[in-house]
Amino acid sequence: MRALVLERRGELALRDIDLPSEMGADDVRIALHTVGICGSDVHYYTHGRIGSFVVEAPMVLGHEASGTVIAVGSRVRHLAVGDRVCMEPGIPDLASRASKLGLYNVDPAVRFWATPPVHGVLTAETVHPASFTFKLPDAVSFAEAAMVEPFAVGMQAAARARITPGDVAVVIGCGPIGIMVALAALAGGCSRVLISDVSAPKLAVAAGYDGLVPIDVTRESLRDRVAAETTGWGADIVFEASGSPRAYADLFPVLRPGGAVVLVGLPVEPIQFDVNAAISREARVETVFRYANVFDRALALIASGKVDLKPLVSATFAFEDSVAAFQRAAQGRPEDIKLQIRVAP
Amino acid sequence: MRALVLERRGELALRDIDLPSEMGADDVRIALHTVGICGSDVHYYTHGRIGSFVVEAPMVLGHEASGTVIAVGSRVRHLAVGDRVCMEPGIPDLASRASKLGLYNVDPAVRFWATPPVHGVLTAETVHPASFTFKLPDAVSFAEAAMVEPFAVGMQAAARARITPGDVAVVIGCGPIGIMVALAALAGGCSRVLISDVSAPKLAVAAGYDGLVPIDVTRESLRDRVAAETTGWGADIVFEASGSPRAYADLFPVLRPGGAVVLVGLPVEPIQFDVNAAISREARVETVFRYANVFDRALALIASGKVDLKPLVSATFAFEDSVAAFQRAAQGRPEDIKLQIRVAP
Amino acid sequence: MRALVLERRGELALRDIDLPSEMGADDVRIALHTVGICGSDVHYYTHGRIGSFVVEAPMVLGHEASGTVIAVGSRVRHLAVGDRVCMEPGIPDLASRASKLGLYNVDPAVRFWATPPVHGVLTAETVHPASFTFKLPDAVSFAEAAMVEPFAVGMQAAARARITPGDVAVVIGCGPIGIMVALAALAGGCSRVLISDVSAPKLAVAAGYDGLVPIDVTRESLRDRVAAETTGWGADIVFEASGSPRAYADLFPVLRPGGAVVLVGLPVEPIQFDVNAAISREARVETVFRYANVFDRALALIASGKVDLKPLVSATFAFEDSVAAFQRAAQGRPEDIKLQIRVAP
Amino acid sequence: MRALVLERRGELALRDIDLPSEMGADDVRIALHTVGICGSDVHYYTHGRIGSFVVEAPMVLGHEASGTVIAVGSRVRHLAVGDRVCMEPGIPDLASRASKLGLYNVDPAVRFWATPPVHGVLTAETVHPASFTFKLPDAVSFAEAAMVEPFAVGMQAAARARITPGDVAVVIGCGPIGIMVALAALAGGCSRVLISDVSAPKLAVAAGYDGLVPIDVTRESLRDRVAAETTGWGADIVFEASGSPRAYADLFPVLRPGGAVVLVGLPVEPIQFDVNAAISREARVETVFRYANVFDRALALIASGKVDLKPLVSATFAFEDSVAAFQRAAQGRPEDIKLQIRVAP
Repeated sequence: MRALVLERRGELALRDIDLPSEMGADDVRIALHTVGICGSDVHYYTHGRIGSFVVEAPMVLGHEASGTVIAVGSRVRHLAVGDRVCMEPGIPDLASRASKLGLYNVDPAVRFWATPPVHGVLTAETVHPASFTFKLPDAVSFAEAAMVEPFAVGMQAAARARITPGDVAVVIGCGPIGIMVALAALAGGCSRVLISDVSAPKLAVAAGYDGLVPIDVTRESLRDRVAAETTGWGADIVFEASGSPRAYADLFPVLRPGGAVVLVGLPVEPIQFDVNAAISREARVETVFRYANVFDRALALIASGKVDLKPLVSATFAFEDSVAAFQRAAQGRPEDIKLQIRVAP
Repeated sequence: MRALVLERRGELALRDIDLPSEMGADDVRIALHTVGICGSDVHYYTHGRIGSFVVEAPMVLGHEASGTVIAVGSRVRHLAVGDRVCMEPGIPDLASRASKLGLYNVDPAVRFWATPPVHGVLTAETVHPASFTFKLPDAVSFAEAAMVEPFAVGMQAAARARITPGDVAVVIGCGPIGIMVALAALAGGCSRVLISDVSAPKLAVAAGYDGLVPIDVTRESLRDRVAAETTGWGADIVFEASGSPRAYADLFPVLRPGGAVVLVGLPVEPIQFDVNAAISREARVETVFRYANVFDRALALIASGKVDLKPLVSATFAFEDSVAAFQRAAQGRPEDIKLQIRVAP
Repeated sequence: MRALVLERRGELALRDIDLPSEMGADDVRIALHTVGICGSDVHYYTHGRIGSFVVEAPMVLGHEASGTVIAVGSRVRHLAVGDRVCMEPGIPDLASRASKLGLYNVDPAVRFWATPPVHGVLTAETVHPASFTFKLPDAVSFAEAAMVEPFAVGMQAAARARITPGDVAVVIGCGPIGIMVALAALAGGCSRVLISDVSAPKLAVAAGYDGLVPIDVTRESLRDRVAAETTGWGADIVFEASGSPRAYADLFPVLRPGGAVVLVGLPVEPIQFDVNAAISREARVETVFRYANVFDRALALIASGKVDLKPLVSATFAFEDSVAAFQRAAQGRPEDIKLQIRVAP
Repeated sequence: MRALVLERRGELALRDIDLPSEMGADDVRIALHTVGICGSDVHYYTHGRIGSFVVEAPMVLGHEASGTVIAVGSRVRHLAVGDRVCMEPGIPDLASRASKLGLYNVDPAVRFWATPPVHGVLTAETVHPASFTFKLPDAVSFAEAAMVEPFAVGMQAAARARITPGDVAVVIGCGPIGIMVALAALAGGCSRVLISDVSAPKLAVAAGYDGLVPIDVTRESLRDRVAAETTGWGADIVFEASGSPRAYADLFPVLRPGGAVVLVGLPVEPIQFDVNAAISREARVETVFRYANVFDRALALIASGKVDLKPLVSATFAFEDSVAAFQRAAQGRPEDIKLQIRVAP
């Protein structure tokens, strides 16, 4: 089957490759339609590894995907051939201790698309468990559906925050994940979300949304602005979505007494953490690892119109232009939020 | 001071009355601007009592109020003369066991405006603790601000529900409280809110809001509709805002496994409760008594534009026409959501 | 295989019966050692049905079980032949929406031992998923291990209550489930647990435990006693474990403002529920349906000595005397808390 | 009034000093009986400051106190002359935003005994708000009651952890606070608490309690031991009570997926925090600042016998020997858990 294969660090090929295609009674077969490019895909391409996950054999990239069901297993009830769907890319051991607790995202046995040695789905077809495949409401396009996976990280962050209706939130970092977190927090009950970054083009995208308040920290102090916006009380919730060590200095000073910090960004350097500042506010700190049980909720918010992801698609490439798409993604243009590849003919 | 006085059951007078006006160091004096008419005001007028609270002496009505600060006590820091404000009408004993827990709404010592023997604020001026007086954002009008009190009940319901972003909710009852609950649940994170009633005019108001789905239970079954809207899974949250014993039969059948029911409506008749139906879903049931710590959050949501209460004001009366306003309120016209009295000249 | 078979309502036989014995890669085969008699077993025997579950074909009884692993499937890692174990008797569809949320107990597809048409385990051997089979700590006997299933209901009740350390709890009903709830609440963080009943012999068992305070409601008022024990504030948590409609009248009057009621008992008659009393305290009401994710926690508390279930075994019968054991259980002697059958030779 | 006065860093005097003694309607006057010595008292003595709190004028030390009511204000209802009591040493502004939320411990306006410039209570009498004064159950001695304040920190930690009954906890640090945390966690629902330190004499005290498992990290690896005790799954809750930067390296490796870390110890050096390790387990991190709403719960657990603080009193000094008591405390003998001063004649 034709697929976008990462042969090794720095080398991509659109070529035929043998992929597993056996289908069980609880599986569906899906013709892929649209696949988004994630920062992790780009990182495997440019660095060949993420932490302990190392590309040691050719691997198909892509895990942000939508498509159409073309076959269903014998025990599948909630899906039928022809259904438009999107897919949750991590498959846990459902009988594990973590999964039984509802925490299947932290099951150590999770197999996740485009994470070595598991292939991704930048290809024509894939087989997937029906229970991790979600039917699209009519109002949701394939392009939006391929955004559900990154938006799910924002939804997980909003869920872990335990927002009280009317909360004021701060999101540090206005990259693709930061803006997803901000939109999820806003739809999830916040009255306003202040979002900070050093990149004016990124903040300009955020500024297009009612309820998101961009803060350019090259021009003003985050602490002063949050104090001004909250009459000195502080934000109810602070989401860290930059992964930057510098961001950590501001986390607690902008937080209200008894507020919550949610860590989403993965820092690449060691982090200094001001324990005394956290304790003096009796802060709660939550962390986010991918997502669990949020795809259906994400789809409901998109379908209802409360969340509009369409402005975040910066460009769409044909499948034949996949390598070019990754080359552009690797440039990291500040105005590019999300690049997508249309796999379907 | 001139005030709208309930002399006794069925008899209202706009007349002069002596009212307490001493001001402490932590108080502010407020010139009233707008006061809404609550169902409880009407009930004291038509029945002379609510449960164990009996009107035994002339009492000023009104507790949904906005106005302007005209004097501040010596220890008040966050308010100044000229500030536009709305007020939380219940004053607890802040040193009580309940208040120290953050549950000041259930402190047995609460003194609440227009609840015998405490006077309300359908009058020119009142004195109130600064800590229960909230400055209005510029974007919030006096009319909207006088709606914060009933909306706060909806906010409390939404907070107690512990909404997960993207939840689907059902609200049973589309009266003033039901619609406030529905708007708070929607702004508070729900993707959609289905709201049911037997009154077409009430449902027509709900239909004017994006995200609220009216269900006329004289024409279709609530159970069937919720099943259809949730592919048989059930609603995540069911708010009971009708106080009707009949509504209780549907509470659990429309709820998903592990969902939450929130009881807001006060029934006047005994309620039959299907414990087995609740247990088989392992339902959580929350109850709502007024509100605590939500006025600031309500104002934030109104100011941000996420909640629009303006369509709910059905008519506004001059202070001189207060008796006529109550007579209309007592008619209970189905198309009347909220009647307000403009006290300011 | 020889088993205790309920032929039809009122008729038990210890006889050979064909039982499924195929073993999958994730299963273990277990030689049963001890099986407790549950009220539901007795009810099927005496009434032939519980609600919509009707005995329409011969069915093996028994679901409170311990035993020894005698074979393991090829993918099983955490168990080995010879391990002493106890088993969770309900097997859900782990790919269901409820199971993925961690709520596998309310998955509608659960198959539960000795619930028609599923056979129980009053027999020599059974095959069970390894993920619902728990290795016993050395300190836990087979007799105690066969009590883990009913104790798990108490553990679920204690978990759903969300006890804050030092809470005072009331348990209404001192039957087998009531006392399990009381012990779980005490081990789970309560400072004291007041337990009420009309049966002096049942209360005498409770009186044997430090921290359980028996209240004979034929001799004193529950309301007065709780008020006296809590200086008028009320209990933090009230567990309803009697299923009696009369108990419902006391639920909220003995509860503190902001407290929680946990419904465990299944009433056979309609229940009147004082919604106004619940709302005026802003009570939270939780319900308990069996249990999920508590067997390991139950074993940990028994092994550590914080929970002692041994005094609750009233009598132990040989497998050959199983019919006599059920006849005694059907008498419902007030001093009998738990009868067990030793299946192992 | 005679009091133990810290004149300046390093200089203590037992001498007469003028102390405020005016009593309001909501206050009680208390004759002190027993006062414990806290690490913070010692630190002011040896260093003259803690963070931004600097001793700039003579200050009476002591805030862990019990005594007897000798006068009550006119509005006090729940206390009477002769009542044995203990006192919560921090007095917040009850009308503040934090206090109304139930978070009065993080109200910036809190005035706390023996924190400059507020005097402590190592003296004969003090005046205190009745609402922060707690009547002792008969079973609780003055010595135990003077331990309620430090134990309250443990109670707050246990409450913030949101223990599920049967949890396994780790406490890092076996000083006075660590052991209080461990006892609160055990009484608050844990099945076992593993407590680690480098000091054999401290661990010997812990070893005297059923359910506390001492781990000497000079002899064995905390990670290996926790893995062995939890079959590789990890602890449900990890309490950091040492304030040591080295402890932070172990926090997440010993935690189970989805577990909680609770930060109690105040580090004096900057802390490196392994964000990736926290995120990969989707850990929750709670912090503890003093306590709120736990004195009554602490007393209930001590009175019921579930918590025994008596073994933690290492020595008791007469009031006349207060300076000697502080000199011993400043030695920091590893076998000294708590030193107390008996103020009453």
